[in-house]
Amino acid sequence: MGPSFLVLSRRFVSTNTIFSSPLPKLSKKQLKSLTTTDLLIKFGYVKQPHAGITHWLPLGLATLRNFEDLIRGRLREGGVLETSLSSLSHSSLWHKTNRWNNEELYKLNEDFCLAATAEEEITDLVKSYADSYKKLPVLVYQMTRKYRDEKRPRGGLLRGREFIMKDAYSFDVDEQCALQSFNKMNEIYYSIFKDLKVPFVKANADSGSIGGDLSYEWHFVSDKGEDTLYTCDNCHTTGNIEKVRPYVEKDAEPAEKAAVTYALTTNNDLVCFYYPEGKHLNIKFIEAEDIIDLNTRIVDQKKVLDIFGSENEKSDGFKSIIRITDVGIGPGTEMPDMAVPFMKSRMTTFENMELTEVQEGDRCSNCEGIGHLHASKGIEVGHTFYLGKKYSIPLDATFVDRNGEKQFYEMGCYGIGVSRLLGSVAEVLRDDGGLRWPAIISPLQVTVVKSPAFEDASVDDNCRVSRLVQDLDTLKVRVELDEGESGLGTKLNKSKQLGIPLQVIVGKAFPKVEIEVRGVISGDKGMRAIESKKAEWGFETREVKGIVKHFVDIDHAAEVIRLMLKDL
Amino acid sequence: MGPSFLVLSRRFVSTNTIFSSPLPKLSKKQLKSLTTTDLLIKFGYVKQPHAGITHWLPLGLATLRNFEDLIRGRLREGGVLETSLSSLSHSSLWHKTNRWNNEELYKLNEDFCLAATAEEEITDLVKSYADSYKKLPVLVYQMTRKYRDEKRPRGGLLRGREFIMKDAYSFDVDEQCALQSFNKMNEIYYSIFKDLKVPFVKANADSGSIGGDLSYEWHFVSDKGEDTLYTCDNCHTTGNIEKVRPYVEKDAEPAEKAAVTYALTTNNDLVCFYYPEGKHLNIKFIEAEDIIDLNTRIVDQKKVLDIFGSENEKSDGFKSIIRITDVGIGPGTEMPDMAVPFMKSRMTTFENMELTEVQEGDRCSNCEGIGHLHASKGIEVGHTFYLGKKYSIPLDATFVDRNGEKQFYEMGCYGIGVSRLLGSVAEVLRDDGGLRWPAIISPLQVTVVKSPAFEDASVDDNCRVSRLVQDLDTLKVRVELDEGESGLGTKLNKSKQLGIPLQVIVGKAFPKVEIEVRGVISGDKGMRAIESKKAEWGFETREVKGIVKHFVDIDHAAEVIRLMLKDL
Repeated sequence: MGPSFLVLSRRFVSTNTIFSSPLPKLSKKQLKSLTTTDLLIKFGYVKQPHAGITHWLPLGLATLRNFEDLIRGRLREGGVLETSLSSLSHSSLWHKTNRWNNEELYKLNEDFCLAATAEEEITDLVKSYADSYKKLPVLVYQMTRKYRDEKRPRGGLLRGREFIMKDAYSFDVDEQCALQSFNKMNEIYYSIFKDLKVPFVKANADSGSIGGDLSYEWHFVSDKGEDTLYTCDNCHTTGNIEKVRPYVEKDAEPAEKAAVTYALTTNNDLVCFYYPEGKHLNIKFIEAEDIIDLNTRIVDQKKVLDIFGSENEKSDGFKSIIRITDVGIGPGTEMPDMAVPFMKSRMTTFENMELTEVQEGDRCSNCEGIGHLHASKGIEVGHTFYLGKKYSIPLDATFVDRNGEKQFYEMGCYGIGVSRLLGSVAEVLRDDGGLRWPAIISPLQVTVVKSPAFEDASVDDNCRVSRLVQDLDTLKVRVELDEGESGLGTKLNKSKQLGIPLQVIVGKAFPKVEIEVRGVISGDKGMRAIESKKAEWGFETREVKGIVKHFVDIDHAAEVIRLMLKDL
Repeated sequence: MGPSFLVLSRRFVSTNTIFSSPLPKLSKKQLKSLTTTDLLIKFGYVKQPHAGITHWLPLGLATLRNFEDLIRGRLREGGVLETSLSSLSHSSLWHKTNRWNNEELYKLNEDFCLAATAEEEITDLVKSYADSYKKLPVLVYQMTRKYRDEKRPRGGLLRGREFIMKDAYSFDVDEQCALQSFNKMNEIYYSIFKDLKVPFVKANADSGSIGGDLSYEWHFVSDKGEDTLYTCDNCHTTGNIEKVRPYVEKDAEPAEKAAVTYALTTNNDLVCFYYPEGKHLNIKFIEAEDIIDLNTRIVDQKKVLDIFGSENEKSDGFKSIIRITDVGIGPGTEMPDMAVPFMKSRMTTFENMELTEVQEGDRCSNCEGIGHLHASKGIEVGHTFYLGKKYSIPLDATFVDRNGEKQFYEMGCYGIGVSRLLGSVAEVLRDDGGLRWPAIISPLQVTVVKSPAFEDASVDDNCRVSRLVQDLDTLKVRVELDEGESGLGTKLNKSKQLGIPLQVIVGKAFPKVEIEVRGVISGDKGMRAIESKKAEWGFETREVKGIVKHFVDIDHAAEVIRLMLKDL
């Protein structure tokens, strides 16, 4: 049997392997200037032999497993069934959903692709089991490698050719039940991100139009993020700048003056966008409306006009002009002159379109203009989608309802990029001293080191240290007693740079131990519990040479460490 | 933190999901006639959407994880480092080792293939860390999906296009150290297969020639196996029939009469194999010696002679003839007449070659003919190879030795097909009643069911059942209390067909519970421990309607179950 040994040994990972020992010697300046990916590589978490390709080394793999276990635990708690589908997916299904020709799909041959996502396969799988309403709802997930033939793969873990994704899918009898599953999954997402203790936000990714898809983006809030988010100070709704539409006041005064941006369609017709001066045009808003083709190019404005001009000469003299004006433009707005000769019959105008991005302080359309929107930066780490019958219809995925009628499933899909999540947590929490992991996913939670002052300690005293390590292990704390050859300073430095939340030094203060905190403190539940037993456990906190240190009797150290980890 | 919750929830899997509830109703005859793969599919362990492609369903995935944990635990215990390399491997490395053109390698494009094995990538990885003799030995492994473009993929888990493989690699300073690593890995393999409690054997896969590669095949011993193994009754060495060479006695009498088999080279030259009448020719033995080309065909003997004849007419009248005679052929052997016209100058003869397979009762060459060889059947589930510098030289993988000189690594590689192992265990242990899993890897170890007799039980009595389940969970026993809607018989049947080792019935005998054993008993350590506490625990064994049942007080049931599982 020996499962207790297996569980124990599963958890243990050493920092003393060829991959991370010794760590490269880096000055503070160098350390600060390194990207997070560089840190992960230099510290032996991962290796990237090519752009977008990641080899997981022992420390990185252990960290990844902790993320997986956290996500798995929350999904299982919610009754979501775990499966693991083959990465080889058959073309026949992708032809049905019209996705076979996606350029980012890696194809092995005419028959198989490497799955980038699993709507096709999972729907095909579930339909052969859940053939009756009695068997619904079904919520399933998998945590597997996915593939995307990225033309411009980036370094790091945020956008790779191969990545680890948790993808979940829900199958329901009708829209109402599907929304219940959708809500349930969002609650699970909430608990997962809450566990990580990194500030996050659920952003509305709804297009806003009635009957549109319901979907949320989950973002870490961080200045290091690439996405711009806007949050309302009244209704607290958050949205990605690419999705948030400005509030349009009834009978609002039109803008005083319009700005114009020119673009060309693939056909080299001219598109003129008019919008209030000072606002930001976002062409994607209008693409979504099917008014102009998706390849409309905004290049250098002079170039646009030159191309259009010469095209006009080549053709019968007048190509088409499409004028699109923003909701902020009205009869009183001062419009710029037409920059090219034109013929009225060749001109089409679309008015009252939403062309511009919201800006800091704009009023919130979600609460009818009561609140104001404020910008922040985010890193997207998850997405929840209500899909409806988008996949069940083309895949002919049906069940028999209460009345014996065949019905298509109402579906949802829910993704978390697990390797991306790891990279994002590293990115958000790292500082100039290296990595910093939340305790729940840190490959190790505590490093115990003996200081030179402990060199001549008795066998009994050494046994007490061993017992501390053993006790921590019993308490399911991931601990390493670093007995490598390097000195105390090097060991502590390594532990801190690797991002391990707590360092315990045994030596000068023995039988007390010193505890240093490298992790991010994001709570005080544990510390409050410690305070209440302060006297009994001999716990005290002092600053020594500018470093805050906690002291505790070694025999109570395991319990104190377990409690401290609750706050990290 | 909550790791205790996570560890607990990780272990739990339910049989009451759409994938395995209800199980299909099968008569004993149907059950018996189904292949093991059919059982795994019908019982909701896996789904195979296409030949060689496997989707893992919750029960199958849980079983697979148990295999992985078992293997991982033993490797970690041995200090082997876990990594997880990308499945996308770059062509540049495979060109160096001359393996890029392997037909079974799935290629994505000119740059990447799907890794079938990882000698190239792991060597390239390790060489960037282990640059000095001080950092060696390095033993690393990974447990990842591998890919093989099988032209004839079989159903089941034994030969797939995608499969899960544990591949380990060792890197050493010299041959002696490399052999130490090789031996260590073989010891680890021994402990892994021992843990599974399925009879196994380590078969010599050594070609026998001095300086040849050292390698072992690990086989389950089973009549259902496809490989034929021979074991010596004296020195206990086992070898695959494809590798074992017969014992050649000094001054042995030559065979009385020779048999002949004709073959054609790709060039349509004739090859005549002469060997003792009654023996089995194995053409692979001679191919290994580079005497004839690897595409020599043995077809219908008349056809061979016809083709050779007509080729002779087309050419200058005489094509080459290669005569190869077995060691058992001597001057006194009666040889068959030459079946075709020939010219002596066009004839080449190789004598004393090993051409024939060993047969039941042959003498063992390993112990100089003292023992005799006996045949058995096996399923190959693992392989250990001493590689030497086969990969380190082409990949220019070196370290600096004690004298400051660059040296190539001495390597070894070690594979276990994990998905294949799961399929093989299922194949060997299944019986006419369905699957039977060893306790250590069974997705669940115990099913607890309440019988109708317990329907009106008090709240207190029901609490005692809950406590039993809780206690089992605390003891790390994987238990399910089946409270599904079906009847007692159906529940027990399901548990047994799924291969769960123990069934516990709460009801008629309460406060005793009845324990039935579905698993294969392969030890008595646990039962002996129970016997010693028999009276105290109220333990007794009785046959009830032809079924052996164990009875024990419910308050001691958890401990008894834990002990019983030790023998299963």
